[in-house]
Order: sequence, then structure tokens, then C-alpha cells
Amino acid sequence: MKTPVLAAVVSLALASIPGHAAETKPGPGDSAATPEFTVRPVGRVEKDGERFRIVIDKKHQPALLGLEQFSHIHVIWWFDRNDTPEGRAVLQVHPRGNPENPLTGVFATRSPFRPNLIALSLCKVVAVRDNVIEIDTIDALPGTPVIDIKPFTPAHDTAKDAKGNQQERPVSSPGTTT
Amino acid sequence: MKTPVLAAVVSLALASIPGHAAETKPGPGDSAATPEFTVRPVGRVEKDGERFRIVIDKKHQPALLGLEQFSHIHVIWWFDRNDTPEGRAVLQVHPRGNPENPLTGVFATRSPFRPNLIALSLCKVVAVRDNVIEIDTIDALPGTPVIDIKPFTPAHDTAKDAKGNQQERPVSSPGTTT
Repeated sequence: MKTPVLAAVVSLALASIPGHAAETKPGPGDSAATPEFTVRPVGRVEKDGERFRIVIDKKHQPALLGLEQFSHIHVIWWFDRNDTPEGRAVLQVHPRGNPENPLTGVFATRSPFRPNLIALSLCKVVAVRDNVIEIDTIDALPGTPVIDIKPFTPAHDTAKDAKGNQQERPVSSPGTTT
Repeated sequence: MKTPVLAAVVSLALASIPGHAAETKPGPGDSAATPEFTVRPVGRVEKDGERFRIVIDKKHQPALLGLEQFSHIHVIWWFDRNDTPEGRAVLQVHPRGNPENPLTGVFATRSPFRPNLIALSLCKVVAVRDNVIEIDTIDALPGTPVIDIKPFTPAHDTAKDAKGNQQERPVSSPGTTT
């Protein structure tokens, strides 16, 4: 598992170094007016000892009908602790906060700093009861807002012959530990 | 590939039938005040004949550094055409707009109607040039806003022994065609 929370702290420190991280700036080819969309939490992450749960707001409980028939789900959540203009302006990071890892665009990483603070975790479903999804684990702090749940469906979610490093960089990259 | 656009039209028609789709309503256990987060497009889907592209806004181009080394990406986009209070209130649908498919919670489907209109597509990367990602295909209309890109990394994105129907329902379900 990655540790985005720790990485977040490290990356934030690194991002304050001038020239370290690219920042958003206007450029040719941008839309004249960027629309905005609104995301509202549908639940939150909870942890009880070593047990992780997604607790869906009661009003959204009907949206869970049938979910128990899937073994895995995509949990889409929000890096709410990084939701600042500075956090959203980070466009490049050293993966895992390690300066030895080559500077990489955030769209080529799972960095918790990115223009939209969306996180994607594939989780194993242990049980679904009422408005609670018990999962194996998730790399999010308790209280973290969950914004969507989707079933893992092999037909849509399987990449045949996927290439790319397990840790986000190709195995041949300098500074990569795997 | 699914056809969420077509399904959207069908589902919208079905959703207008009273009692067909559950709607959001207050319930016990909900947060007293639901925060809101803002999502801004970072690019858009384009199609040229049979070629599909994600065109990232120029100002976000630095976020693509290193992406060409991945064979597959998660494209996260917004069902902008369904962004209405009615579209976001749909909590249950008949998958693929087929009334013979049992009513299912949207979190157990890829329905284009859901509380937050987030779509997730796994795409094969054909090429990355400047601010353009050429992909194999995507089930989104040209002009659709893209809100995030993440690399497909087998360590995070592979579900071992995944169960659940390839079309979102278990193979034993009545009305399922596969």
C-alpha cells in the first residue's frame, strides 16, 4: 500500500521549495471559461481497530442495493486535507516524497496533491450491512469523505498486458526501489 | 463496452415513472451539514473519426510528465449532461435501462445517474504528445469534461479472484443476458 498521508506531508514540504513543483498557470489552448462542478460526500471512512468501513449516509443507502454481490469495489474519495489552492496547484511531485525519484506529473502518480483532489482505491468487500460496507483496508484517514462507489467489473476494469511500474514508475527508472 | 449515453436516455425516461427510482431524502444518521467540494475540468474528450483523445488544458500539461510510460490509465470524467437535481437524485436503476434487469443501487452499477456524476474508464494509452493523450476508446461523448487521470498500476488496481457479473449483476440473476 502507498502512504498518501505521509507522502502528502513530505510532498507539501517539498512543494514549498521554489522550482520543485510545477504550478498551475494560464496557457494557450485553455478554455475561455472553466466550469465548476459540485461534489458532495455520500459517506465517510471509519476505522475500528483493524476493521475498515465505508459508512454511507442513510439517505443514500438505497444506492447500495445489490452491492453485496461484488467481491471488490472502487471507492472514490476526496483528499479533503489537501483542499487548498496550493495543494491543487501542484502538478509535479517526486513520487512517494522521495527526492531521488524523478519529478513526475501528478497524472502519472497517485499523488494526494492534484488539480481535483480525487482518490481512487480498489477495496475488497468483506460485508455489506444496511448503510455500512465493511472492507479489507483503505489508505484513507478515518472521517475522510467518500464521494462515489463503483463495482469492480472485470470486463471494464482489467488491463490486459498492463505495463508500468507497480510503484508508478517503470522498473528501469533510477531511484525506483522495486 | 457499456453505452452509458444510451442508457442515460433510457434511464431518464424510466426514472420519470413514479416509484421506479429511489430518490434522495433525509434520513437519520446523515451529517448535520454536508460539505461541498469543487471540481474543475482539466481537459476534455475529443474524437476524430475512430481516434479518441484526451486533450488536457495547456496549463495542466506538466501533470502529464512520465505518463507515456504507462500502458493504461484511469480516466475520470463528469457526466455533465446529467448534472441536474433530478439526475443526481437517482439512487436505483434497472441496469442498462432494461426493465427486466432487477432494480439495483447506483453504487452497484456504472449508471450515469448517481449522486456525484463521476465516471471511471480504464483506457489503453496509444500515445502521449504534448497535452494530448491518444487512447484506444472511451465511452464518453466528444467535449465531455475530464477531471482526473491516474495511471493503472497493477499493484493497486488488480482484484484477485474478483467476483461479480461482467455486466454488473451476478450471472445467476434473472434478466441478465450474459
